[in-house]
Amino acid sequence: MVSSTVGRSLRRCPRDDETPIDRATLAARDAADPLSALRAAWDVPDGLVHLDGNSLGPPARTWGQRMAREHAAWRDLQIRSWNDADWVGLPRVVASRLAPLLGAHEDEVAVTDSTSVNLFQAAVAARRLRPDRRVLLTEVGTFPTDRYVLDAVAALVDAEVRAVPRASLLDELASPTADQVAVVAVAHVDFRTGHRHDAAVVTAAAHAAGALMVWDLAHSTGALHVDWHGWDADLGVGCTYKFLNGGPGAPGYLVAARRLHEALLPAIRGWFGHATPFAFDETWTPAAGATRFLNGTPPVLSLLGVDEALQAFAGVDTRALDARAGMLTSVFVELVDERCPGTEVVSPRDPTARGAQVSLRHTHAYELVQALIDRDVLADHRPPDVARFGFAPALVRHVDVYDAAERLASALAEGAHLAPRYAARRTVP
Amino acid sequence: MVSSTVGRSLRRCPRDDETPIDRATLAARDAADPLSALRAAWDVPDGLVHLDGNSLGPPARTWGQRMAREHAAWRDLQIRSWNDADWVGLPRVVASRLAPLLGAHEDEVAVTDSTSVNLFQAAVAARRLRPDRRVLLTEVGTFPTDRYVLDAVAALVDAEVRAVPRASLLDELASPTADQVAVVAVAHVDFRTGHRHDAAVVTAAAHAAGALMVWDLAHSTGALHVDWHGWDADLGVGCTYKFLNGGPGAPGYLVAARRLHEALLPAIRGWFGHATPFAFDETWTPAAGATRFLNGTPPVLSLLGVDEALQAFAGVDTRALDARAGMLTSVFVELVDERCPGTEVVSPRDPTARGAQVSLRHTHAYELVQALIDRDVLADHRPPDVARFGFAPALVRHVDVYDAAERLASALAEGAHLAPRYAARRTVP
Repeated sequence: MVSSTVGRSLRRCPRDDETPIDRATLAARDAADPLSALRAAWDVPDGLVHLDGNSLGPPARTWGQRMAREHAAWRDLQIRSWNDADWVGLPRVVASRLAPLLGAHEDEVAVTDSTSVNLFQAAVAARRLRPDRRVLLTEVGTFPTDRYVLDAVAALVDAEVRAVPRASLLDELASPTADQVAVVAVAHVDFRTGHRHDAAVVTAAAHAAGALMVWDLAHSTGALHVDWHGWDADLGVGCTYKFLNGGPGAPGYLVAARRLHEALLPAIRGWFGHATPFAFDETWTPAAGATRFLNGTPPVLSLLGVDEALQAFAGVDTRALDARAGMLTSVFVELVDERCPGTEVVSPRDPTARGAQVSLRHTHAYELVQALIDRDVLADHRPPDVARFGFAPALVRHVDVYDAAERLASALAEGAHLAPRYAARRTVP
Repeated sequence: MVSSTVGRSLRRCPRDDETPIDRATLAARDAADPLSALRAAWDVPDGLVHLDGNSLGPPARTWGQRMAREHAAWRDLQIRSWNDADWVGLPRVVASRLAPLLGAHEDEVAVTDSTSVNLFQAAVAARRLRPDRRVLLTEVGTFPTDRYVLDAVAALVDAEVRAVPRASLLDELASPTADQVAVVAVAHVDFRTGHRHDAAVVTAAAHAAGALMVWDLAHSTGALHVDWHGWDADLGVGCTYKFLNGGPGAPGYLVAARRLHEALLPAIRGWFGHATPFAFDETWTPAAGATRFLNGTPPVLSLLGVDEALQAFAGVDTRALDARAGMLTSVFVELVDERCPGTEVVSPRDPTARGAQVSLRHTHAYELVQALIDRDVLADHRPPDVARFGFAPALVRHVDVYDAAERLASALAEGAHLAPRYAARRTVP
């Protein structure tokens, strides 16, 4: 996916046989890419290289004004804001803005609760559609909270979790015991390594085995091409505070294929998932589509952050986002290969098999990340030995990749990561 | 609970044998009550009589500044705010502020998710502690979403919901079939009528039957004396957007007695409920105390609203709040009796058996509420025929009660509620 004009070496370490990558070339690439305009939507301090958008994205530049407006509504209208500022309609508005980034229909999306709660809901609902099968299939080393949730679901609904290595997933689905699998629940992009599944292939394998497919899209939406209908997936969950920039702890979402709507029953049923919530019926009647997965009163303040951020994504082509993520990560891989001895790229080298992320293995990964943060490069550490760099294509410029690689190379060269003060800090989520 | 200086009649309808309630008397009572100072903490437009704090309380006056500060942290520190602005510690800070209002220990409280999710968690966890009993006992006409959640739990964990009239609850717990009851789950204050249970009595009856007690405290916390340890209750849930003024859709909470902590297992287990979330273990190990009920990444923006509001409640005596709620509601009942023909007080007349709420039955309750809103009295309607008035003791003044009764009486006298435009409006949550 890296164009042929991109060379294989760095300014300070040119190889004679190839064109070096220099900052000017990358700046020109930024200037030529229409997607670069999206950077202006986000509030990032000058000089900061933000490679941690896969943990928490920046605020939208309009966030302060939006909060002031909504604060005024709350103060002036008080409870009337539920109607007069349409807070009651906010979950649906936000779902309609998110749907295009998933390639899904509006009515297939519910923005609600945490990703954990949504995965719980999706896994229980899917398991109920395969009552004669007991296995929830996942991967060794999947995002821990996903594993905790699946283990909890298994304890609740008489099921068992089978965890296989990521590389064995397709074999497992073709094995004789695949007919025990009710649900396949894995992350599209691995949080630690950045490995990306071919979602259409895995979904087809799950379906061939008679199982339902639940995708965790937390590290995909807003950065990669999610092709819900093309994948033919069943259920998905994700979060809005990473590449979507919705704000700290912003609500998660659940996406459910239309063909399943009639049969899907949420494990947790609240009034906002009721067909007529304000009738105060004693009996729960599901709302149409994915809206049934809303349950309690929606978290308006947090949803407003998502709403504001998603407006900046309006009309964005997810294929272009995906291509830009591939460009950015490929340049970083190349620069690291050239410049950063002692690090090992653990993410796939094929950008189509990689998320918007490059993970480096290093003996002192934690300390190295701390040293980079002190050099205004935001990255994060994932135990035991991974330094993780997220390349949010809606945000990160080609020149940022260059600057990050330069600072990483100089930190390593100087042994900055060996400073004793770094070992004492703790990590962030 | 109404003091002997309070008369039994209204200025315009004095009865010879009693001292009329006049506005000046009520203003004097406001001036004499130390709790009146709390009113200044909230942002309510001048002239507005806010009797809907049991749906959505007003913002704290400091909310704008707080949001600006946190917005700056997000913008300037980005992801580092999780540590440097201590967002990661926010759920525990908020729980420590809430605990005194419940009469609970800090480690018994988790502020997280929606009330619906918390009730789901509490009901499943309680049911697991009574594996040989199948009945979830609740009341006919409890808050609908509570009923939906209990029905959903029953469908999931092989249980059944038994719903009895509120007045029969104690009889049911003394009946021969009480030994089937695993969990008693009811609201401390009924959302529609304002009836308040004697929580210690009901809890004791549940325990005598061998069941666990789960309280919905949504209409109690911040308005009434909740005496968690005195009640000897097991589990409780509630919300922070009503009398606690935490903001629209602010997170709910779960409270769990210390004696149960070791045995309690959340149905949904996420990384923020893990003993060491940032170790990214594959196996879930419960955090100490109620913290194990945190699950996904906490909704920071919404939690900040709760944090700001709860700071205003610091040091407030819940017995004094409760007494003030009794005073306010008693005055309203008295004025309505005198002045408002065609309305029927459906809330208990004994303030110790009543929440901070007075519900009136009226043939045109919906339209009457609309007419009051147009007269700057915020109240709400609950189907089919209840007009509901909340008297948040942290907010509502005695003179507000007077003004509300005046405007209600004049609306009724003028037939304002019969105006055709009111029938077209829809209700708010």
